[in-house]
Amino acid sequence: MARGNIFVVTAPSGAGKTTLVAALLAADQNVQLSISFTTRAPRGGEVHGKDYHFIDRAGFEAMIAAHDLLEYAEVYGNYYGTSRQWIESVIDNGRDILLEIDWQGAQQVKRIFSDSVGIFVLPPSIDTLEQRLRSRGKDSEEVIAKRMAAAREEMSHFDEADYVVVNEHIDEAVRDIVAVVRAERLRQRTQRIRHGALLGSLKG
Amino acid sequence: MARGNIFVVTAPSGAGKTTLVAALLAADQNVQLSISFTTRAPRGGEVHGKDYHFIDRAGFEAMIAAHDLLEYAEVYGNYYGTSRQWIESVIDNGRDILLEIDWQGAQQVKRIFSDSVGIFVLPPSIDTLEQRLRSRGKDSEEVIAKRMAAAREEMSHFDEADYVVVNEHIDEAVRDIVAVVRAERLRQRTQRIRHGALLGSLKG
Repeated sequence: MARGNIFVVTAPSGAGKTTLVAALLAADQNVQLSISFTTRAPRGGEVHGKDYHFIDRAGFEAMIAAHDLLEYAEVYGNYYGTSRQWIESVIDNGRDILLEIDWQGAQQVKRIFSDSVGIFVLPPSIDTLEQRLRSRGKDSEEVIAKRMAAAREEMSHFDEADYVVVNEHIDEAVRDIVAVVRAERLRQRTQRIRHGALLGSLKG
Repeated sequence: MARGNIFVVTAPSGAGKTTLVAALLAADQNVQLSISFTTRAPRGGEVHGKDYHFIDRAGFEAMIAAHDLLEYAEVYGNYYGTSRQWIESVIDNGRDILLEIDWQGAQQVKRIFSDSVGIFVLPPSIDTLEQRLRSRGKDSEEVIAKRMAAAREEMSHFDEADYVVVNEHIDEAVRDIVAVVRAERLRQRTQRIRHGALLGSLKG
């Protein structure tokens, strides 16, 4: 069986990443979001193995010690992290995994999974991004200035990604990301494994 | 302006390449078939610059001498060939070019345009290919055996392509090739030029 692909989607706040990823997941049943491990307690309605993998502190610390975490952080006393072993079990079953992370996380994933596919989502312009942040209408000038600085910092890493999707029209941007995921499955090296019976016979 | 891409589609006879390429061209207005130069006379209804670039023998031989031809052949006393300069003028205008050629032509194009994108179209199985060739119902066993040998020879070069599309269900195969063309336009290096105003400002 051909291994699944790992897609890493990176974007500044305000680029529309969440909408885009939701549309991709709805359009393509073979790609699934990465599910984090956490030590915090489940909230109402959260399902183990769907929203998070809930785990106790000793279990999480064992994963840290085993270097199983691609990235992790402690927030308000709770751990959150992404398990390399879990990701490998998903892609070994031929499914694609999608991670939504920042440029630092993307670099980390690329170091560990060199064939992961980076997709950077950008707004059509800096002005548009600022308008989107302002239109939320509840932040001070200082907060907006900080967010814009963080967004610029994030965006300056666009050239570390394999693909760039500029989200000007959401319908077009959805088609873009769907096309990238579909095309990556057609790479010759992947197809050679997927269609091994046919292609193996040709190189006899 | 970002340069267009060069797509090279290769397939054995019977894989359904012609149908697939026609569907791609109908679905995507920014990609066009390469138009060959020829010294043969136009036939009824053929349009210069659409079906072929019609040119006299002296003109064609000047193109040969200038090493302008990616590939050319003489068939029944007439020359046919693909002009490098013409392809460059099309992609310089931001349009994509698609060439339907065999593995030898594909190798030649890759040598000259190293960033050209190779797409290999395959039947779902050798048996299916043979059934398709037989269903035409007018060829002798000897002719079919020769065609199958030629198809196997062509197919053995699948691993020189960047992408492999297996044409089992034509609708899915069309979506595949459309996705490859769309995704290739989203490559970071191309987008950096296309969205220079935005992306240039980020690397300030």
